[in-house]
Amino acid sequence: MKLTEIGMKAKETAGFLNKLGVREKNRGLEMAARALTEGAEAILLANQADLLRARENGMSEALLDRLKLNEERIKGMADGLREVAALNDPVGEVLEMKLRPNGLQIGKKRIPLGVIGIIYEARPNVTADAFGLCFKTGNAVILKGGSDALESNKAVVACLQKGLIGAGIPVDALQLITDNDRAVTKEFMRLNQYVDVLIPRGGAGLIRAVVENSTIPVIETGTGNCHIYVDETADFQMALDIIFNAKTQRIGVCNACESLVVHQSIAEAFLPELKKRLDQKQVEIRGDERACAIVPEFVHATDEDWGYEYLDYIISLKIADSIDEAITHINHYNTRHSEAIITKDYENSMRFLNEIDAAAVYVNASTRFTDGNEFGFGAEIGVSTQKLHARGPMGLEALTSTKYIIFGKGQIRE
Amino acid sequence: MKLTEIGMKAKETAGFLNKLGVREKNRGLEMAARALTEGAEAILLANQADLLRARENGMSEALLDRLKLNEERIKGMADGLREVAALNDPVGEVLEMKLRPNGLQIGKKRIPLGVIGIIYEARPNVTADAFGLCFKTGNAVILKGGSDALESNKAVVACLQKGLIGAGIPVDALQLITDNDRAVTKEFMRLNQYVDVLIPRGGAGLIRAVVENSTIPVIETGTGNCHIYVDETADFQMALDIIFNAKTQRIGVCNACESLVVHQSIAEAFLPELKKRLDQKQVEIRGDERACAIVPEFVHATDEDWGYEYLDYIISLKIADSIDEAITHINHYNTRHSEAIITKDYENSMRFLNEIDAAAVYVNASTRFTDGNEFGFGAEIGVSTQKLHARGPMGLEALTSTKYIIFGKGQIRE
Repeated sequence: MKLTEIGMKAKETAGFLNKLGVREKNRGLEMAARALTEGAEAILLANQADLLRARENGMSEALLDRLKLNEERIKGMADGLREVAALNDPVGEVLEMKLRPNGLQIGKKRIPLGVIGIIYEARPNVTADAFGLCFKTGNAVILKGGSDALESNKAVVACLQKGLIGAGIPVDALQLITDNDRAVTKEFMRLNQYVDVLIPRGGAGLIRAVVENSTIPVIETGTGNCHIYVDETADFQMALDIIFNAKTQRIGVCNACESLVVHQSIAEAFLPELKKRLDQKQVEIRGDERACAIVPEFVHATDEDWGYEYLDYIISLKIADSIDEAITHINHYNTRHSEAIITKDYENSMRFLNEIDAAAVYVNASTRFTDGNEFGFGAEIGVSTQKLHARGPMGLEALTSTKYIIFGKGQIRE
Repeated sequence: MKLTEIGMKAKETAGFLNKLGVREKNRGLEMAARALTEGAEAILLANQADLLRARENGMSEALLDRLKLNEERIKGMADGLREVAALNDPVGEVLEMKLRPNGLQIGKKRIPLGVIGIIYEARPNVTADAFGLCFKTGNAVILKGGSDALESNKAVVACLQKGLIGAGIPVDALQLITDNDRAVTKEFMRLNQYVDVLIPRGGAGLIRAVVENSTIPVIETGTGNCHIYVDETADFQMALDIIFNAKTQRIGVCNACESLVVHQSIAEAFLPELKKRLDQKQVEIRGDERACAIVPEFVHATDEDWGYEYLDYIISLKIADSIDEAITHINHYNTRHSEAIITKDYENSMRFLNEIDAAAVYVNASTRFTDGNEFGFGAEIGVSTQKLHARGPMGLEALTSTKYIIFGKGQIRE
């Protein structure tokens, strides 16, 4: 099917979805969840084919694990849809209704965005997750998943669509682009006429490619070169606990800590303890010259280390002479995701909160909390690292827009 | 000066502006306003040079009028800055502060966007307006105005910068790109590293060019192919008053009405009255076949008319068999700006409000109200016709972002 046809169908269906009540949408999610469980066999068969091909193509074990589905993971996808059904629907709420001096009543109503495009890597669980969030907010969604997961995605989408049919909802609420040609993906990114927003989910390369090529408004998600700054007055035990947690609790995630900045006045006392703690998980510490002078076992950091998102048992470490130097360093190298200060000093905590440019700025807590569930949104479509529309963990509200509704009685402008 | 240098300076200054209090910002606006009035002579001289050149190049009278400055218009620019100073500053407000079960306090703080780029046509008053709104919200701004207004813009910027210096604020809070090479403008649109958002202000062509070429997030403003639908039960007098107002009160603006849809059951009675009313201002009515059969003096509309923004004493007119046909027609041809229904019917008013896809949807009022002042925002940077970040008239808040601030006491993620 041609992309413009997919776009046209999505746009048309968006008009239908806009009129659905929350009860009908929740029924669609429940039917889709049921269809997933019932279709598990077919999904697993398709996933086997993807895995076989990926292995032949030499895919790494870590990526194979992301691609792999099993009964439990399919159940997880179905449960995810039911959890989204249980969430409050933000659509339809009128945020403010004001009476103007001329008698006009002007209100701001929350509405679906319309058609959402999502480009992601070979992770078939994203297929169901993304559908659930977009559908709950009344949006039609067009998915373009990684080519290595094509058969799995086709099978998952077929199940979800079967569920939609059962609930009397047009299948085009969810469409999958099955053409793996790169030219098609590029064309998709220029489908302004039909697609209201494009959300890339994946690594830095994917996101950069979308930002570079898309003429559709993009919400950037993801990459996190997160820092923790250990201030002069930090409680060492707290700092060690938070750093250990932020670095090692889960290494492959965007809110993991990748870089440390330590105030020079405590470096000599703190660094050996830090090494001892991170040695528990064999974390490699790449320090600047001064750090390596204190702990000779540190690896010498190069300039590339400061901006690098390792997603691994590696962390970089810089010593700063002042909080000013720390803030400047972090604002230069961070990816606007999550940054933390460990301090007992009131003024420094305030300065860090105000001056660090990031979606989430922490005092005395782990960067690992930047997450829709931890923030109390119940679910997230990703973590926005840009400044327009949504910043930080994006819950259902980030998938909506507003429009002004105006009630008059014949008013004209003087 | 190289663009990257301009970008770097803007980014650096944005960090400074982020720390300013509202009192210091208002002082900057006051000093800038004063410097404008004091520099009026130099500005007028520069403007004379622009006007002379533009006339030689054959610029139309309408565009010359937009380019032209005089004492009064300069005073208007200065007054505009003072009005912005009087507005409430949205920056710094913490929107919600919630206590999570683990004791984390998470709040959403309103902050400046950072660096704003504005590309606009040969209208030197936009130079001061855009600066005022961006500066009040703590943003550094980079302006690229139409080449025909270059000398005027240089003079205006010189005055504003003089005001900033007087207030002890870095002049790079406001920078003007003076290189008129198209390649420079294109490069500007790809200055992601330094510019947080790009706002084009001008006609459809300019906006399309920015959307096509920019890798910086764009806020689309402007084009308005606004409709009024006259429903079966409409009060004729109200419909005539609103249409006359929306079409003729000011023809060159984006919220002027460009197209009518009339229910077939009232067409025979309504159309002759409509003609009589619009004849008062010699408005040309371009009707579909059925409309022309009722009033033979109407001009026959072609397919191009339905999507055209005339900005002139011309209006198109289509007859619809039902509200469904009217809604479908409007959603197909509108530019998501402002649309109105004239009706006495409750259900139709609700359907129109819900189903029309536009930034502002009216019942029984003129589309001319879509405006920051009329909506009570005090000032506007433009009318957003896209769905991300801001929709409809954009006041100061549209020039801000948010960040999450999190207060902890050593929390780590389990």
